[in-house]
Amino acid sequence: MPLSVNHWGLYTDFYELTMAQGYFLCGKKNDTCVFNYFFRVNPFKGGFTVFAGLDDFLKILVKFSFDDSDILYLKQNGFDDEFLKYLTNFRFNGTICSVKEGEIVFPNEPVMQIEGNIIECQLIESALLNIINFESLIATKAYRIKLVCGDRKFSDFGLRRAQGLGAIHATRAAAIGGVSSTSNVLSGKLFGIPLSGTQAHSWIQSFNSELDAFRAFVKTNPDNSTILVDTYDTLKSGVPNAIHVAKEMEVEGHRLKAIRLDSGDLAYLSKKSRRMLNDAGLEYVKIVASNQLNEHVIKSLLQDQHAEIDYFGVGTDLITGKDNAALDGVYKLAETNGEPRMKFSENVEKITLPGKKQLYRCYDKEGMFFRDAIMLYQEEAEQAEVIYHPVYTERNTVVKSLPKEPLLLPVVHDGKIITEEKSTDNIHKYLMERSCLLPEEHKRFISPHIYKVGISSELLKLRDTLAKKLK
Amino acid sequence: MPLSVNHWGLYTDFYELTMAQGYFLCGKKNDTCVFNYFFRVNPFKGGFTVFAGLDDFLKILVKFSFDDSDILYLKQNGFDDEFLKYLTNFRFNGTICSVKEGEIVFPNEPVMQIEGNIIECQLIESALLNIINFESLIATKAYRIKLVCGDRKFSDFGLRRAQGLGAIHATRAAAIGGVSSTSNVLSGKLFGIPLSGTQAHSWIQSFNSELDAFRAFVKTNPDNSTILVDTYDTLKSGVPNAIHVAKEMEVEGHRLKAIRLDSGDLAYLSKKSRRMLNDAGLEYVKIVASNQLNEHVIKSLLQDQHAEIDYFGVGTDLITGKDNAALDGVYKLAETNGEPRMKFSENVEKITLPGKKQLYRCYDKEGMFFRDAIMLYQEEAEQAEVIYHPVYTERNTVVKSLPKEPLLLPVVHDGKIITEEKSTDNIHKYLMERSCLLPEEHKRFISPHIYKVGISSELLKLRDTLAKKLK
Repeated sequence: MPLSVNHWGLYTDFYELTMAQGYFLCGKKNDTCVFNYFFRVNPFKGGFTVFAGLDDFLKILVKFSFDDSDILYLKQNGFDDEFLKYLTNFRFNGTICSVKEGEIVFPNEPVMQIEGNIIECQLIESALLNIINFESLIATKAYRIKLVCGDRKFSDFGLRRAQGLGAIHATRAAAIGGVSSTSNVLSGKLFGIPLSGTQAHSWIQSFNSELDAFRAFVKTNPDNSTILVDTYDTLKSGVPNAIHVAKEMEVEGHRLKAIRLDSGDLAYLSKKSRRMLNDAGLEYVKIVASNQLNEHVIKSLLQDQHAEIDYFGVGTDLITGKDNAALDGVYKLAETNGEPRMKFSENVEKITLPGKKQLYRCYDKEGMFFRDAIMLYQEEAEQAEVIYHPVYTERNTVVKSLPKEPLLLPVVHDGKIITEEKSTDNIHKYLMERSCLLPEEHKRFISPHIYKVGISSELLKLRDTLAKKLK
Repeated sequence: MPLSVNHWGLYTDFYELTMAQGYFLCGKKNDTCVFNYFFRVNPFKGGFTVFAGLDDFLKILVKFSFDDSDILYLKQNGFDDEFLKYLTNFRFNGTICSVKEGEIVFPNEPVMQIEGNIIECQLIESALLNIINFESLIATKAYRIKLVCGDRKFSDFGLRRAQGLGAIHATRAAAIGGVSSTSNVLSGKLFGIPLSGTQAHSWIQSFNSELDAFRAFVKTNPDNSTILVDTYDTLKSGVPNAIHVAKEMEVEGHRLKAIRLDSGDLAYLSKKSRRMLNDAGLEYVKIVASNQLNEHVIKSLLQDQHAEIDYFGVGTDLITGKDNAALDGVYKLAETNGEPRMKFSENVEKITLPGKKQLYRCYDKEGMFFRDAIMLYQEEAEQAEVIYHPVYTERNTVVKSLPKEPLLLPVVHDGKIITEEKSTDNIHKYLMERSCLLPEEHKRFISPHIYKVGISSELLKLRDTLAKKLK
């Protein structure tokens, strides 16, 4: 059980260690290299991806080392003694540039750039992909839900359906994307995310009557009670009993906060419940809804069916990033000992971009996101006159006079973290700022407009020269 | 970061704590109760589910306690001092019965039964659901893949696409379901699962030529080399270079183990590669394939396209349980202070089964799984003459003379674990034994035959009486 793992060097794929040993034994251990992290497809058939997971990855990075039992385990798996001696003192001493957490990013652009010796860069690959792919997936999902919730708040109720301990990071990512609170108490504590929750059917069932159950609950939570009304019969029993209790609370000077609907037709039941509450003079009692929600269901509830729901609890689809379940991010070699490298492929869109790079965001006259430009690191942003579609290079855009912002910023320098940890709340605020600059047509769910990412003429030239050589 | 959490009491939903405090404050803290864990739908549109996660859940259970910082955190969240004092000394002291890990189970039957005071049973709900739902999902997925792989082995390559730390448990569950090895080194160490891996494109790219890269790799791994052949051009470069190196190895008295295909059309490339290898007298070199595999793709590759693949590396779909991403298991109250309880619902199939129970597997004359029978705990298995469909009770089956095996066995008694930890290998062997007894028609992927689970007449009577009372 990983309940108290303090050394995370084994959180890697076996082949990273096999290759690291190979580099070590064949005299390449001091070769320098540059790797890029990027993904190829936006999740959820969407028009953007929210980058997340950086802080969590950095926390694993500083603990990416091997204790005695790890070394012993590797010895039992046939690793070489000299190499294991090297691993005993292993730390990542390289340099990492990254876009900020909460940044809105797009397929095929370098979102992170890792430099160091080839062993350290190789060993951390799996942990980086594991954390960044996952948190970016969930932050994107949460933000999509936020887009349809508008001013309404929504909460993460997903712990019970999360993928094991993946719940912990998922909740953090959900907070970056936009949940206002979580039911997951451990993540709440670890990341400073507000807690929320209501009650389970078991509470209601454990009393002899629903009314007794409601009364007991509000007595112990007089100022923060949300009552679950669907244990027996929502409209015939749950809501009438909730109204009864709310009226009793008024006498005591308290107010029932909300009722929760957790089954049945949420549009129908919410409208009926709203009317019943209002008829009883309980306009202030809110309606919370849960049960297999996602961005599409919430959009339909609010926009098509005018459901009277004030607050959503979202579980499975949010916390697992259903229907994608994974972001397809990869980690590819771009340079060795100063020499640009690329992977060739029969699929032209899978050819990687060689060389150390910088990623620029180009703004239009209104200050909105217009294009992203991938350039070689040594190029000046001002140099870029035209950027090219990486596959169909006859498609290109003049970006000469546009303002450009470099997005890859140093976060680790020679093994030292040089970025400050931010709260999920602050990261979410940054996301909201950036989201305002993303044109609406990239945010829609059905066939969103594709945000264009181009490469500079220098990078294009390098890639084509290298491709010819490889052929 | 949860890298060194030793107290797992906060790995729960906020409402469990709110309810626990409520029970505590309203004088119900010594109420006894019985909860059941069950799920409603087999994942992947399949005909069965593999139960997994028990050992991992029990390891969290024994660490389900609160340290000073947890108590402080709850105090800051408004919890009552007396209740927090109670939590300071909290341990689960109840009793748990469960089916064995690796058992084949079906929707709506009680797979676990938890007894204790209402606070301890309530607090552990979320952790139980989190671990059991997830590992059962992944073990089921892995076993589905095993069903199509037959004698061919397959490996878990999913760490980079796993849902964060969920990778750790996912790999264990995959081993229960049938992977013969994993690339995830941490899980390999924690659970004793064999490691495997090949090499990444970055290894190839970091050398000046593919041939140099292959030569260097086999030199450091002379007896266990799998070579990745698709970095530049599989058939024109990768396979010819692999053959060249294999021939050089033969001179040195070594044998190349395998080549790996990771892109392109795996059926076509595997057949072409097989012929090229054979023509070079390298019949012994195996072919490994990876790239977006799952049970359906592998079935098509082997059965429809006769691909020449000896071994599969499976990533995303296995490690995330795509396309389901979650098993819908729930935890429902069945009894309080000896009184049976149930949740009513407008959907008749969502009505829960009241009372403490036992689950029996009934065998047919050939000794194959025939029906599962849910009975009240105090009933003798021999008493059951007929079992009834829980919704359409006019459908029933005579089970009178059939051999019946109780499946819910004690694993925790008064807070003490009384079951031995088993290796994933042994659990997998148990699954294989059980699988032999499951008729084939439940194993097919398209519209599998539904395995029937019935309830005893006593349980039916109790449910109907209670339902009438609640109405």
